[in-house]
Amino acid sequence: MKDKRPAPERDLNLTPPCVILDRPQLADNIGAVARVMANFGLHELRLVAPRDGWPQERAWSMSSGANWPLDEAKVFATVADAIADLKHVYATTARPRETQLPIVTPRGCADTLYRDAHNHTKTGLLFGAERAGLETSDIALCQGIITIPVDPHFQSLNLAQAVNIVLYEWRLQVLDAPKPEFTQNMHAPADLNIVHGLYGQLEDELEKAGFFFPPEKKDSMVRNLRVALGRARFTEQEVRTFRGVVTALTKGRGKVLARRAETQEKDGD
Amino acid sequence: MKDKRPAPERDLNLTPPCVILDRPQLADNIGAVARVMANFGLHELRLVAPRDGWPQERAWSMSSGANWPLDEAKVFATVADAIADLKHVYATTARPRETQLPIVTPRGCADTLYRDAHNHTKTGLLFGAERAGLETSDIALCQGIITIPVDPHFQSLNLAQAVNIVLYEWRLQVLDAPKPEFTQNMHAPADLNIVHGLYGQLEDELEKAGFFFPPEKKDSMVRNLRVALGRARFTEQEVRTFRGVVTALTKGRGKVLARRAETQEKDGD
Repeated sequence: MKDKRPAPERDLNLTPPCVILDRPQLADNIGAVARVMANFGLHELRLVAPRDGWPQERAWSMSSGANWPLDEAKVFATVADAIADLKHVYATTARPRETQLPIVTPRGCADTLYRDAHNHTKTGLLFGAERAGLETSDIALCQGIITIPVDPHFQSLNLAQAVNIVLYEWRLQVLDAPKPEFTQNMHAPADLNIVHGLYGQLEDELEKAGFFFPPEKKDSMVRNLRVALGRARFTEQEVRTFRGVVTALTKGRGKVLARRAETQEKDGD
Repeated sequence: MKDKRPAPERDLNLTPPCVILDRPQLADNIGAVARVMANFGLHELRLVAPRDGWPQERAWSMSSGANWPLDEAKVFATVADAIADLKHVYATTARPRETQLPIVTPRGCADTLYRDAHNHTKTGLLFGAERAGLETSDIALCQGIITIPVDPHFQSLNLAQAVNIVLYEWRLQVLDAPKPEFTQNMHAPADLNIVHGLYGQLEDELEKAGFFFPPEKKDSMVRNLRVALGRARFTEQEVRTFRGVVTALTKGRGKVLARRAETQEKDGD
């Protein structure tokens, strides 16, 4: 398979971020995003439930020849699916919701993106639909929020323009960065689908336990949990540990002890 | 007249740059540029010979409500006319021609733009037509070149995206900058129409003198002269001085002396 990374990314052996568009409405914008990706050396595009289906010819005609991100774009049903194999995702939004995720500027996140790229920690840049933006529940699946410093009196930034700014900062970081000697003293975070498995287990159990009360608060309670856990960037081992924790907590300490005792009794025979 | 500057520019009492589009082809792009200007707090738009005339309704429909740069856009016949009252103009181009103008990144020019804005030295950001880009002769009227660091393998940056990047850097500079205490120990440069008057006089005289030989080299010779002189950022007084220089050189030292002698003779009577 041909290495699609441009020279600096290839020479530095980086694993660059992918671009994820959530429910994009206009094929024009998808094409414009592909063009910007080509301008700044990225190639992996993921689409979550594009409004008018996929492929759409108009995207290609708007990309000015930057066809490769479109040719290989992958389509997903949900944001969770689209980011399942990633380890760190930034959501871009002009109006950061009240959430406990770190909020950074495009410039502020470029360094982190670069470090992850250098460590082959696969990252994603998530952008919302043209008018609606991102759902708060999808933002809660991410590990950080990028906000572009537009004038508060006119915040309506075109989708491709938002991508443009973030990828421009990525590119500058790649061009400016000396080959860094990051010390990789931490294990890589787990793929997000693994983390989401933990969330699901936890929330199912909490549901059964009547934790989400009153019911109309459930969505925001879930989001707050996910955000708080997400910031921890669990490793796979830690996810396993915490799944065990949830199991232990729900099955009851007594049962675990009972089973252990039972096993020991057998072993003792 | 209402102050259209957004809060930081107003509070800092800045004279922000204007945006100049040379022969824009698509009203869509003009509208998209207006939107970006609103995003990053600029309002003054100048159009050089828009291909399909002006006004064009489609620009307004593409601006997402950023109407004010369009409502007050001024149209000019040539780049020289459009920049006549400015003192410093950056040309943005992906492929810097061989010229002796300083080439800077969007980030690299933001500081200079800010200093000029603070000193009420009116600046302009010039962008070329969608496909054709800028004429080398128009670049030669500018004092610097901005190049956006796109991937050399895919340089085709959409017009509004190029404006987007440059204005984003302007905005960051405005937001980041503490109120600076620039020492204003230099006189302001002359308005560019005054400088162009000097160029015209000089070139007319050189033409008469048979300087532009062979004739097919004339255009590039003119450009090289303008670029070299433009870097000096002459004050008005200096322009007057140099016009006098040209006159003196062309009328001949003898004649100047003769007239002076004549005058003195009269005075002596």
